[in-house]
Amino acid sequence: MEAIILNIGDELVSGQTLETNGAWLARRLAETGVPVKRFVTVGDDLARIRQAITAAASDADLVLITGGLGPTQDDLTRTALAESLGVPLEMDERSLQRVRDFFAWRRREMPERNAIQAMFPKGAQPIDNTCGTAPGIQVCLGRAGVYAMPGVPREMKAMFDRDVLPKLADASSEVVVTKTLRCFGAGESTIAEHLGDLMQRGRTPSVGTGANEGIISIRISARGPREQAGRHVAATAEQIRGKLGRIVFGADGDTLAGAVAALLTSNGKTVATAESCTGGLVAKLLTDIPGSSQYFLGGIVAYANEVKAGLLGVSTELIDTCGAVSAEVARAMAENARARFDSDFAIGITGIAGPGGGSDQKPVGLVYVALAGPAQCQVVEHRFAPEQGRAVIRGRVASAVLDMLRLRLMH
Amino acid sequence: MEAIILNIGDELVSGQTLETNGAWLARRLAETGVPVKRFVTVGDDLARIRQAITAAASDADLVLITGGLGPTQDDLTRTALAESLGVPLEMDERSLQRVRDFFAWRRREMPERNAIQAMFPKGAQPIDNTCGTAPGIQVCLGRAGVYAMPGVPREMKAMFDRDVLPKLADASSEVVVTKTLRCFGAGESTIAEHLGDLMQRGRTPSVGTGANEGIISIRISARGPREQAGRHVAATAEQIRGKLGRIVFGADGDTLAGAVAALLTSNGKTVATAESCTGGLVAKLLTDIPGSSQYFLGGIVAYANEVKAGLLGVSTELIDTCGAVSAEVARAMAENARARFDSDFAIGITGIAGPGGGSDQKPVGLVYVALAGPAQCQVVEHRFAPEQGRAVIRGRVASAVLDMLRLRLMH
Repeated sequence: MEAIILNIGDELVSGQTLETNGAWLARRLAETGVPVKRFVTVGDDLARIRQAITAAASDADLVLITGGLGPTQDDLTRTALAESLGVPLEMDERSLQRVRDFFAWRRREMPERNAIQAMFPKGAQPIDNTCGTAPGIQVCLGRAGVYAMPGVPREMKAMFDRDVLPKLADASSEVVVTKTLRCFGAGESTIAEHLGDLMQRGRTPSVGTGANEGIISIRISARGPREQAGRHVAATAEQIRGKLGRIVFGADGDTLAGAVAALLTSNGKTVATAESCTGGLVAKLLTDIPGSSQYFLGGIVAYANEVKAGLLGVSTELIDTCGAVSAEVARAMAENARARFDSDFAIGITGIAGPGGGSDQKPVGLVYVALAGPAQCQVVEHRFAPEQGRAVIRGRVASAVLDMLRLRLMH
Repeated sequence: MEAIILNIGDELVSGQTLETNGAWLARRLAETGVPVKRFVTVGDDLARIRQAITAAASDADLVLITGGLGPTQDDLTRTALAESLGVPLEMDERSLQRVRDFFAWRRREMPERNAIQAMFPKGAQPIDNTCGTAPGIQVCLGRAGVYAMPGVPREMKAMFDRDVLPKLADASSEVVVTKTLRCFGAGESTIAEHLGDLMQRGRTPSVGTGANEGIISIRISARGPREQAGRHVAATAEQIRGKLGRIVFGADGDTLAGAVAALLTSNGKTVATAESCTGGLVAKLLTDIPGSSQYFLGGIVAYANEVKAGLLGVSTELIDTCGAVSAEVARAMAENARARFDSDFAIGITGIAGPGGGSDQKPVGLVYVALAGPAQCQVVEHRFAPEQGRAVIRGRVASAVLDMLRLRLMH
């Protein structure tokens, strides 16, 4: 079995919105052993959608469509499907009731226009949408099974996992097993040197690397019967962990904040934050994780100097002498936050994320991060390239400080 | 003139790497007046690449290819191009020297296999690569101009802007002008009802909508001579703003936080935050924007009840009587933050983002947001569907509170 993924929307083909459904679906399909022949993305144009559906259905056993199921006039997937099948659209009363219920539950009346979402090509099977109004559509077109799902990634993912995937699960005896190790603290080429022959092309499992904002991902992949492929991938992952040691902070969807959260929880330790240039980002990352109240007590975003002095109690003399962006102030922020929140650890961050606010002595990209703990307070100076821009610099500062805490907790 | 964009790579079609070249190229092409018919993504498979090239060249005047130009065995674009043309590959001595020079400049010897990057289909025109080793390839296939570029986005973008775009610039006197209005506070179908005939298919400029986590985007697009198309788009945008009023918070890349930032700055007002379940997210959003120190004084992330009581001074009696998740505590958080930070406005947020921590009386998704200002403190109860998950709920809470502040500032 092979699949073609068809994504529909003017916002995609005009480049206004990045198409992400294809990659997500391809990963899900690989796990079930269904390889993807191609992605095709077309705009909201009836003839083109119909043509793309017909071409895909004649060239693959499985066609997954996302997008074009909304209530407006530029949502044309259901019409294109009906035309491809040569059948009319018909109202499905049960689906209509479900759309009505969805609005009722949110205490709103259903706009008349939404009724179109309960129209299906004659003979098609509706697929319930558990987190939105647009039901999906399942039809057979020639030898191909065709599944149309909403374009909103969250709705599509829920529908695919709940209602489409189970129908494909037994499709193949061979699957692709992939594991990704996540690393921080070394560059891609340094890691490649450590890995050596493991990265050779043609090796099974295959090993490849990718870099994104300081996080290096190592992708290990093997194809075969599930149990055997899984064993090979696990063995290679162990080898790599052995070579790289503490640089590896997690696997697959793990984040640095997640790794820190796990270590804090298992050690029964707590943390608090005092942030200036990151403006709450580190607190946000630490509380992205369910159950974060176990280890995160709270934080102060000390953006104005008066806040650093007032709420955080950093002495104004220190700020005047060393400057708000200084190792001394970062240290005082961390130590005072640790005292204020009565936490085991506390983070202090002060710097210039830019694009404005820099000077010759204190350029954009200069950041001091401090980590106060029971034994000592460690301060590190970072200099990020201003060209990276505010968002990347703030993200890198957060990664650096989270990794500092991770390594401290691993001692 | 119309274009098809063809992206090549196993890492794309397997979903390991997100395909981003298509969207970037589509935006660049729209600015020059060349609409994109479709994106196609295929893996490193000679027959599929050849087939995709042939199909694209027979269906569009312009085919842009990215990927498959590297030095390894799975880089097959040049071979597929040669086969599509029915010509052999030939070595281009000048290109070979350039690849050698690139390695020499980096003080490395050229691996022998990189020589393949100087092979071109007979009659093709090499395109220099100013930031990598792989030269691009320009050929004519039937009526179509075909340009093959590297898959690495940085190299592709440099090559497109320097060598491909200038050849297309005069291709069309017509351009596509697009403007996107961003809305909050009404659903997609409600907005479609307000817009009525404006969304009719075939209308010029075209008007389409899209929804993403509560933000509705209205895309207005017209084709024609640049000045005229721009005038038509601007007129339609004005009409829509007239119909929707304060629901429209911005255009194109604008965010709710950005709209709030602009209003705070122009009104000379300041804001502070006291966040529980959003854990610093609102502060982070408000400080994403360069120059945020103008209006953002600071915030307290009061995750633990002791922090709500201690640093924020919410009375423990109030917390015991009403519960930490209550309108009363949200109000006290906002009012006390306003006093502590001496700001014009302050935001208070308390709720249950889940997945744990809910009860019958206080279910996951229940959130109270408060906005304290000079005149009054407004508190709103929200109930978000728990199935949306922690990240979406936190994002929606942040959007809701930012919009509350936006509307207050517009009074």
